[in-house]
Amino acid sequence: MADRIILIDCPDEKGLIYNIMKVIYNHQLNVTSNQEFVDGVSGTFFMRTVVEGNGWSSEVEKELIKKLPDRATVRTSVMKKKPVVVLATKEPHCLGEILLKNRYGELQSDLKAVVSNHDELRPLAESFDIPFHHVPVGSKSREEHDERVSDVVQQYSPEYLVLAKYMRIFTPEFVKRYPNRIINIHHSFLPAFIGASPYKQAYDRGVKIIGATAHFVTEDLDEGPIIAQDVLPVNHTYTAEGMAQAGQDVEKNVLTRALKLVLEERVFIYKHKTILFE
Amino acid sequence: MADRIILIDCPDEKGLIYNIMKVIYNHQLNVTSNQEFVDGVSGTFFMRTVVEGNGWSSEVEKELIKKLPDRATVRTSVMKKKPVVVLATKEPHCLGEILLKNRYGELQSDLKAVVSNHDELRPLAESFDIPFHHVPVGSKSREEHDERVSDVVQQYSPEYLVLAKYMRIFTPEFVKRYPNRIINIHHSFLPAFIGASPYKQAYDRGVKIIGATAHFVTEDLDEGPIIAQDVLPVNHTYTAEGMAQAGQDVEKNVLTRALKLVLEERVFIYKHKTILFE
Amino acid sequence: MADRIILIDCPDEKGLIYNIMKVIYNHQLNVTSNQEFVDGVSGTFFMRTVVEGNGWSSEVEKELIKKLPDRATVRTSVMKKKPVVVLATKEPHCLGEILLKNRYGELQSDLKAVVSNHDELRPLAESFDIPFHHVPVGSKSREEHDERVSDVVQQYSPEYLVLAKYMRIFTPEFVKRYPNRIINIHHSFLPAFIGASPYKQAYDRGVKIIGATAHFVTEDLDEGPIIAQDVLPVNHTYTAEGMAQAGQDVEKNVLTRALKLVLEERVFIYKHKTILFE
Amino acid sequence: MADRIILIDCPDEKGLIYNIMKVIYNHQLNVTSNQEFVDGVSGTFFMRTVVEGNGWSSEVEKELIKKLPDRATVRTSVMKKKPVVVLATKEPHCLGEILLKNRYGELQSDLKAVVSNHDELRPLAESFDIPFHHVPVGSKSREEHDERVSDVVQQYSPEYLVLAKYMRIFTPEFVKRYPNRIINIHHSFLPAFIGASPYKQAYDRGVKIIGATAHFVTEDLDEGPIIAQDVLPVNHTYTAEGMAQAGQDVEKNVLTRALKLVLEERVFIYKHKTILFE
Repeated sequence: MADRIILIDCPDEKGLIYNIMKVIYNHQLNVTSNQEFVDGVSGTFFMRTVVEGNGWSSEVEKELIKKLPDRATVRTSVMKKKPVVVLATKEPHCLGEILLKNRYGELQSDLKAVVSNHDELRPLAESFDIPFHHVPVGSKSREEHDERVSDVVQQYSPEYLVLAKYMRIFTPEFVKRYPNRIINIHHSFLPAFIGASPYKQAYDRGVKIIGATAHFVTEDLDEGPIIAQDVLPVNHTYTAEGMAQAGQDVEKNVLTRALKLVLEERVFIYKHKTILFE
Repeated sequence: MADRIILIDCPDEKGLIYNIMKVIYNHQLNVTSNQEFVDGVSGTFFMRTVVEGNGWSSEVEKELIKKLPDRATVRTSVMKKKPVVVLATKEPHCLGEILLKNRYGELQSDLKAVVSNHDELRPLAESFDIPFHHVPVGSKSREEHDERVSDVVQQYSPEYLVLAKYMRIFTPEFVKRYPNRIINIHHSFLPAFIGASPYKQAYDRGVKIIGATAHFVTEDLDEGPIIAQDVLPVNHTYTAEGMAQAGQDVEKNVLTRALKLVLEERVFIYKHKTILFE
Repeated sequence: MADRIILIDCPDEKGLIYNIMKVIYNHQLNVTSNQEFVDGVSGTFFMRTVVEGNGWSSEVEKELIKKLPDRATVRTSVMKKKPVVVLATKEPHCLGEILLKNRYGELQSDLKAVVSNHDELRPLAESFDIPFHHVPVGSKSREEHDERVSDVVQQYSPEYLVLAKYMRIFTPEFVKRYPNRIINIHHSFLPAFIGASPYKQAYDRGVKIIGATAHFVTEDLDEGPIIAQDVLPVNHTYTAEGMAQAGQDVEKNVLTRALKLVLEERVFIYKHKTILFE
Repeated sequence: MADRIILIDCPDEKGLIYNIMKVIYNHQLNVTSNQEFVDGVSGTFFMRTVVEGNGWSSEVEKELIKKLPDRATVRTSVMKKKPVVVLATKEPHCLGEILLKNRYGELQSDLKAVVSNHDELRPLAESFDIPFHHVPVGSKSREEHDERVSDVVQQYSPEYLVLAKYMRIFTPEFVKRYPNRIINIHHSFLPAFIGASPYKQAYDRGVKIIGATAHFVTEDLDEGPIIAQDVLPVNHTYTAEGMAQAGQDVEKNVLTRALKLVLEERVFIYKHKTILFE
């Protein structure tokens, strides 16, 4: 039986770990991994515990809730691959990386389909035997296009949407359908260079380091909770295009690092920030 | 005789290196280091050449100017320690690092004095036998205080002013007196988190990497040409104060790296950006 | 009352966290920080828990031992500054960094004295009002010199000895007196370039990255448990001396990072390796 | 007409750059990029110059040789894609990365074929329409197998062989056929952990950073000139397998970084080390 992941957050109080472990111990569950964090500022307790699957029953969850403070959240899930749909535009590097890692089991992903507003990436997706859907924008309004994308996406019932350099902004209506379920890669070290053309902005400002940021998508553009970031040194010999090219490896590495964390249920979202149990 | 540094910038044209090297060769000067960069976007040529001191005369400079295009700039200087004044407030880490590196000759600096709006750092400066001047703000206006600081600074005729966590903003009048001669360390990865309390801003945004930026001070706050940047990974366990503490090592390393470049005449400023010959 | 740090290691078994937390809970101690790690290969459990000082009594420790498996180790200590003696030779950068961080309370250290086989660093130590002892080697054998050093060191009853570029090798007898209590900085990315002149070795091999390693000193030279490492990119323009100079910042940063971990009781040594609760 | 790359190395002497630039200037060639390096230890001059293709003739090369010291080497080549054969075994990450970057023109490579001692990677190569050759070892001696591999490779007349986690050691005879033309990725930060199972060695030693090294293959195993290296922080929670998995991204990034440098003719080999004009 697959391992069970238990995610708990609640107001901090004395004896929490004791009370949680008592329930787990009474059910003779073996803890294979356990991590806690107390946010001292807000007095909030977070815990990620993995127990071996045998002996698990929904009773455990019920008992945990009974033992915990009123505003506790307890989520449990089985460790297994999750259905994912990728949205991309024209750049192949992030999509290619996900296709490779999905194929060789390096992510807990079951990649169902690739959806794009352009047709350029079709051969790449199809060479990995992943269905590709071209949803051209044409004369459609943003609302109409998002509606059409949504129709295509929904047939795969994905648990997560991954924006692998999808160069369009979703309507709030679209975002609301996937709360904390859309992961984007932004090609800058947020919050520097929000919006379009971050490499051009970085070039103009003359920064000595560029970066990439993977974050959850919220209704506020480029403002969602950050999951992972990384950087790359640059210098005066880089044009804006050179930065964009050099940044590709960082973008794809940051995006798949974030995906790995999310798909393995290692991420709490709290107060617009993430808590990562790596 | 000390080595001579030659810094040239001019519009790019065919034969530039040839023409420059002809002058140097005709004077039988030995080139010990030579670096060029052509900014393709603006068509501008930059060169830093170091020649052995023997055989150098002001004639060389004159001949170079004659051979170069009209808008050429030729600057030459002897490789030697330059007078520097440090301004700081209360935090000792950047000042301490400069005091150590200055004492052991790791920077081309001749540290003349430390000036501060507080008195806390006096023992640190004085234990390195560096004069310390406390210029309290009291009820003085910004203009009056800057004037007073300026009086103290000027007695040392510094070539560069270093703001080692000097937590005040200079008036434009003060800045104008030292064009491209004031180096500041900003405790964020600019242009993220401009202004006050960057670590607090970083904490609130939930970034996964923090950084520091050394830059020339211009009249636009935090907008001057960037010389050096570096970063440090952080996570949800860091408070804003924890970030500030962890960031200290990055701040001091970035500041002294920038100082080393500036004091060794390795920095061109062009279009509000820096070109570094490292 | 100062916080109390509890360090536990024992064979892993079901219910460990539960049993430990039960004791802590029964004594009404508040847990401010808690970290566990199970080494799956050997089946060993490690835990670092910090509880608020009020309510602590030696009873807690006794009860914990009773509840734990036979081969358990329980160590507890109060969070406070620990007496430290630094040994150095001629290079000032590591010593300077420790003097600064010790003075401004950035390490949990109470620096008692500096001991050196040369006299060069005396002014540096004394400018920070730290006693300096010059123990010249002269015609003394290694054993005699170590004996003399030991005499000087022992008068300060240090909890840790820090080798801040101390360029001599201790006799096994000396090392045995301070088991897991001597921290050294080696100027290479161990296990690359063991022994003397690691930068020269790095230069000859043409590596593109150099590093530094802080480790506990054991009787096997450069083979003790590694606490911290970091690296720096280099290239063909670096001579061996240039690498040595560039490496200084990494050396001092790695050494003080390791010291911080050790002095805050965040380090377990197990099977010649370290487990760090950062 | 494609740009022309000129690579020169020779004993250093006064006037070298002048003499070289005179030839280039006399032929009215436009220099688009120029980099020099003088190895002060051996007194050797290295230069990489790129000139626009128009106006180039073999005369230029002849004149350069005439102007340069006796032991000068002048190599020139056109900037264009070079034929490459990849050898791999079972791990897909490095091969996958090369297939992607080759397909999208991010390397100056024309990937002709993949050769392997196993058949696992066939689908990956073939999904990118690259011929795949399985050359099983079976009961063949190392010499026989290398001979067979050589037969397959030679039909593609590759300029470079890339070992993308090819887990066999070549005979000296094989290596001699491709002097400075075989690029390998070793899964450690050389010279640490030479030979087999570097991640197991790294785990056993308890290092805090792991790495990867791309190098030219010589007859001395893992001793060839290093082209690129990079590292990744690890800690006590990593098993040897966990390190191997985490190291994959570093391996593939380092390998393709090295390939890019080699294929763009940015690498000099000198005294068993590399000089990189990046």
